[in-house]
Amino acid sequence: MEQIKGYSYGDSALDKSPVTMQDLELLKKTLLWSKDDERYLNMAGKVLQDQTDQVLDLWYNYVGSQEHLLHYFTVDGKPSEHYLAAVRERFKQWVLDLCNRPYDQTWLDYQYEIAKRHHTTKKNKTDKVDSVPIIHFRYIVAFIYPITATIKDFLVKKGDSPQDVEGMHNAWFKAVTLTALLWCYPFVHQGEF
Amino acid sequence: MEQIKGYSYGDSALDKSPVTMQDLELLKKTLLWSKDDERYLNMAGKVLQDQTDQVLDLWYNYVGSQEHLLHYFTVDGKPSEHYLAAVRERFKQWVLDLCNRPYDQTWLDYQYEIAKRHHTTKKNKTDKVDSVPIIHFRYIVAFIYPITATIKDFLVKKGDSPQDVEGMHNAWFKAVTLTALLWCYPFVHQGEF
Ligand code: HEM
Ligand code: HEM
Repeated sequence: MEQIKGYSYGDSALDKSPVTMQDLELLKKTLLWSKDDERYLNMAGKVLQDQTDQVLDLWYNYVGSQEHLLHYFTVDGKPSEHYLAAVRERFKQWVLDLCNRPYDQTWLDYQYEIAKRHHTTKKNKTDKVDSVPIIHFRYIVAFIYPITATIKDFLVKKGDSPQDVEGMHNAWFKAVTLTALLWCYPFVHQGEF
Repeated sequence: MEQIKGYSYGDSALDKSPVTMQDLELLKKTLLWSKDDERYLNMAGKVLQDQTDQVLDLWYNYVGSQEHLLHYFTVDGKPSEHYLAAVRERFKQWVLDLCNRPYDQTWLDYQYEIAKRHHTTKKNKTDKVDSVPIIHFRYIVAFIYPITATIKDFLVKKGDSPQDVEGMHNAWFKAVTLTALLWCYPFVHQGEF
């Protein structure tokens, strides 16, 4: 498989997540997480496998059509094609990782890495760009909606039963909510996360 | 109408929201907000009007069954019935406010007030209880899932068409995401919200 630039999932040099496996267990309980959700996410992984380019076309179209969002990919006020293209490859991989990876310590550690990449701590570093220094918190949580709502049309594409599509969509909603909140860690006051 | 204890929507003594009406416009754009969403929320308001007790039974059952969540309603390690009961009345009103109120400056200001009530800034003050000082950030965002997923069964109860139920549910999802993120304001580093 071709190497994705800047994608360092499982790299032993990554910082350990400040959120522990016990914390993760309680978060999953809060999200009413069950074995079915894992099964449905794996099913979604198979359904989305060959559609990630179309999914990313839609999401990039959405970001590209809203100036205040595209802003976060700009250098000197102009969208950086290099930056957009580099992130796109890792974003495609994320769709599959969300569905297929076990949510273990390695997964937690990469969530922490992505968190920092959305924050001043590490934004722009991976792709060596001189873009704006931070993505504002409000939009990270807001994105739970579009990232969840727009996946539905892709989940129905392979002719699965309405119950299975509903199950996949529901598990996807939980998984996106979980990742989005984990990515907020660097933005939150010490001790309040 | 009977007065709800501690419910101060529209009170001119409330602090002004640090999030402006312009900020709100951009957030709504991000959530792909349309006139239809307002119409569907109003429809949901009518459907939920006489079901708020059943909705709250379900949500309190959920919180009550998870020790790490009930924790936030405890005094000296034991759930405070007084606190739970007082919050329940305001929570019922919130369901209707989310559906029926215009999202204007008054609405923004009350979102800021509720934000502070989930944070050390003001938790426990309204009901004069000696409970734990803060609700941890992670669970506020996590709650977007259960608060959205569990409302569906109540939205179908009045025999509306599947399209209308879907429209109401979708608008509810956007509205809950929007409020939850606004409530995170006090938890986030200055300038990063
Ligand atoms: C649920 C919310 C979000 C999801 C699921 C998401 C997904 C992703 C993924 C998968 C990556 C690549 C991670 C990696 O390096 O492996 C990424 C990076 C990035 N995202 Fe997001 N994102 C979210 C919110 C946002 C928002 C609100 C913006 C603002 C428009 C944004 C802009 C960016 C940018 C600029 C990068 C590159 C960061 C860097 O310099 O490394 N993201 N995002
Ligand atoms: C989407 C997320 C949430 C929603 C929609 C929600 C809804 C509400 C509402 C409507 C109120 C009353 C507001 C008022 O005073 O008018 C309230 C207060 C409260 N909520 Fe939440 N809540 C959320 C997250 C949480 C979480 C995660 C917990 C933890 C179990 C929690 C525990 C409490 C407590 C303890 C109060 C009383 C605060 C005080 O002392 O004034 N809430 N919530």
